[in-house]
Parts: sequence; structure tokens; C-alpha cells
Amino acid sequence: MNIAIIGLGIIGGSFCKAFKKHTDHHIIGINRTQSVANQALLEGAIDEIGTADSLGKADVVFLCMYPQACVDFIKENGKKIKKGAIVTDSSGIKRAICPQLKELSLEHGFVFVGSHPMAGKEKNGFEVSEAELYEGASFIITPCGAEQKYVDTLSELALSIGFGQIKLSTPEEHDRMIAFTSQLPHVLACSYVMSPSCPNHKGFSAGSYRDVSRVANINSKLWSELFLENREPLIEELDILLQNIGKIVDAVKQNDRDKLANLLEEGHKVKQLLGE
Amino acid sequence: MNIAIIGLGIIGGSFCKAFKKHTDHHIIGINRTQSVANQALLEGAIDEIGTADSLGKADVVFLCMYPQACVDFIKENGKKIKKGAIVTDSSGIKRAICPQLKELSLEHGFVFVGSHPMAGKEKNGFEVSEAELYEGASFIITPCGAEQKYVDTLSELALSIGFGQIKLSTPEEHDRMIAFTSQLPHVLACSYVMSPSCPNHKGFSAGSYRDVSRVANINSKLWSELFLENREPLIEELDILLQNIGKIVDAVKQNDRDKLANLLEEGHKVKQLLGE
Repeated sequence: MNIAIIGLGIIGGSFCKAFKKHTDHHIIGINRTQSVANQALLEGAIDEIGTADSLGKADVVFLCMYPQACVDFIKENGKKIKKGAIVTDSSGIKRAICPQLKELSLEHGFVFVGSHPMAGKEKNGFEVSEAELYEGASFIITPCGAEQKYVDTLSELALSIGFGQIKLSTPEEHDRMIAFTSQLPHVLACSYVMSPSCPNHKGFSAGSYRDVSRVANINSKLWSELFLENREPLIEELDILLQNIGKIVDAVKQNDRDKLANLLEEGHKVKQLLGE
Repeated sequence: MNIAIIGLGIIGGSFCKAFKKHTDHHIIGINRTQSVANQALLEGAIDEIGTADSLGKADVVFLCMYPQACVDFIKENGKKIKKGAIVTDSSGIKRAICPQLKELSLEHGFVFVGSHPMAGKEKNGFEVSEAELYEGASFIITPCGAEQKYVDTLSELALSIGFGQIKLSTPEEHDRMIAFTSQLPHVLACSYVMSPSCPNHKGFSAGSYRDVSRVANINSKLWSELFLENREPLIEELDILLQNIGKIVDAVKQNDRDKLANLLEEGHKVKQLLGE
């Protein structure tokens, strides 16, 4: 198959490298900044540098840009996509862009299937992309009404390049869960390192500090967009979290050992039950 | 030297194993539950099972119990300790117990030097202790007025069994920094996993979820004690954190992209500057 990857950052770049490592598909890389596309070609991460005009020969298109940029790209270039081709995004939010992409797919005769590869790093750009980024990770698919055979094709592609599991979901469920599993930790990490104590942590810190603060090394432009496009679920999860922190704060302020131990035990039990 | 380790849980057990791995010191293990001491002897983690009466021949004593239990143990057995021996604790809080242990040291003629090995796991007990637990970790020492030569002896012992650095501190500074580096992440982890979304995380989660939730697998009895014995600094850090989360929540609620991006960028810059 001819596979076009639009946007050669960490996500798109890793798709290219994983496809080249695991499959024989012909990989067309399309990127705004040409030096990056040249680098990708030089490294053998792609077979060909493409332009929007290359979309006519792609059987599958991966949009690997910021969420709204994916929509804008398709608005501009949707007519160039081959009829019946599968187009998927890789956005960390779904309600805000899937309906628009679905509509554009009907207009232009391609098949839209939403997806979100659950992997990343604290760094961005093609230079930190790697063939192993998706190894064992979850590949979330939001079919958005696409026929099963297209969902199957995309699932098989994902599994063929190292993903460990396929998770089917709706844009609504996806966004709510991502608010919890991904967005909340990013809010926490940034809030955490803002403490005046943070710069003095060395010598006083170990794994707990490292783990909570890790994702503070955030791409603030991307994550502002992700947060604001997912405001309602994120606010709901934040309110729940603040409430739960508040319960612990109250128990500490009241010096209530039993209440505090019970709250911590609640957390302990959830975590123990889930195993991970 | 004869080194007595009191309390063969993960901390004490790991001290035993690290001393046996790296040094020729004679290790005396003292533990309330005899089966654990037997197991330690059987595994070669200690050279001898001791009782409080063995304290008379120990040159260095490591107290590896819950904070208040360390004080209680010395109140009961301080008179059995050899004159001039070094006694150290391994408690995660310092203001609440160092002054008492210092006083007992003057009363009984031993030398108290506070310490806190910055390592641990989400599991407890001798069975998860290991010789490598302290590899590269920070060993915090609160001298509490002890002569430099005793601080040096303890530092050398720590470095000899794998610790990567010695951090000298006061009980006050220690407790404030630990509230931030260690206690706050534990509060966050427990609060985080209490969300009704948590049990459904599988397939939607990756590194961020794993890292923030890791220490929720908490020993609720130990950590309630640690939190309450360190109430003021912990409450201060919690208030700062809630304030900073609040700023982000406000920006999200107000749909204010610039404000939100600036806040995230603040976190990003702190983390980037610190490097870790």
C-alpha cells in the first residue's frame, strides 16, 4: 500500500520509521518544513517526499499535526484524496475534530476513521521520533461510523507496526478518559513544579518527584489547544481531583489519623485492584 | 564494625543486604517478628540475629522502623547502647523525632545523627528489600549537632554501600523539602486514582497515568503517620499546589488560551531549567 504521513514530528516520524521497520508499504512523507522531509528521506524513514498532490495515490493517510491543523489541511486538500482511501488523524482529542473530518470525508469520498496512538515523549520533533515508540502501546480507534472493513484495515496496520492493543471507543468516551489518563497528569506536573521548593529538590528527591514532574516538560502550545478543545471533560476531572485532594487536606488539617488513613487506603485499594 | 539494623522491612532489609554485598562489617539483625529475622539469616543478609541486648556490642545502629517506633525503641533500650556508638534513624520526617532522639543520646551517652535514605518502592517488607535499593540514591544526613567525625563515619558508610550522594540538611529544611518531593506526590497519587474514571483506564493510558498513579499503592498506616507528623510543611505545599492547579483550572474555564499557554510554559521552563 501507499501510505502518506502528513507531519513528520515525533508522532508522524515514528509512524514512518515503524512502517519502514516492520512492513514493505511505500511511505510518502509530507511536511511543511522541507529540511525535515529531506532528513527523513536521508535516514530512510520515508520512501518519497510528497506534496498535497501525492494524496491521489495514497491508500491510507495519517494526519499527524495539531488537531485543528488536521481539519484545516483536509479542508484545503480533501479533494485531492483518492476515493475510498482511509484517512485517520492522530489527535489527542476527538469530539472537536472527528465530526468535521467525518463530514469532509463524505463530501470528498474518502473514509474517515479516527485514531489516537497512546505514546509520546517529553520531547518533540522528528529528531526524537523512533521506530519503537509504539511498541506495546494502545492504539485507540474511534470508527465514527466507518464500515468494519476499514476499521479492520487500520487495526491490522497498527498491530503490524508494534502496537500492543486496539481499543475501540467513541469520541465522547475517548475525550473523557484522556482528560483523566493524560491531560490531568500534565496539569498536575506543571502545577507541581511551580512550587518555590522545586528548584531545591536535588538531594531531597527520588522516584516520586521524578515521576510526577516528568511531563512538566510540556509543549505548551500543543497542550493549550488540547486542553481547551476538551474543556468540559477536563474541568470535570479537575473538579473531582480537587475534591479528592481537598478531602486529604482536610484530614491532615484536622489531624484526623483514622480519616486520613482511610482515604489513603482507598487509593491503595484502587491501585492494588487494578494492578497497574 | 558491628552494625545493628533494627527493623528488617524494605529499608532495614536493604541496608543489611547492601552491607553484606559491599562490606565486611558484621551485621546484626533485630526484628520483632522472628520468622523474618530467620529468613534474613538464612539468605545471608545478616550475620547474626540479635536482641536489644546485642546493642552493647554495636558500633553503629540503624533504626529502620516507623518514626515514633524509633523513639519508643530508644526510650526502652537506650541504656543498652554502647557509649560512643552512632545511632541513626531512617525516618522520612525529622523535626518530630530528631530532637527526642538527640535528647536520649545525651542521656545515654551515644551519638545521634539523623538520616533519611531517599529510596523506596511501592511494596513493603523484607521480601522486597534488595542490595541495590540505594544504588545512586541520595542519603540525607541531619547532623543535629553531632561532631563532624561521626557525620563523616556515617557518610562513608552510606557511600560504601552504593548511595550516590550525601545531602546535609537541618530537620526543618528536610521536612519542608520532603513535603514537596515525596509527600505531595503520594497525596496526588491517591487523590488521582479516586476518580471514577480510573477503573476504566486500560487501553486509554500510557506513561503519564502510570507515573502519577504509581505511588498510590501506599502503606496507608505509615504514610498517615508521616503526613501528620509533618503537617505544617505539607499543608503549606498542598496550599501552593492547589493554588497553582487553580490557576490552570481558571484559564481552562475562561477559555483563555494565552493565559493557559503561559502557565504551562512556566512549568515547562522550570522543568527544562532543572534538567530533571
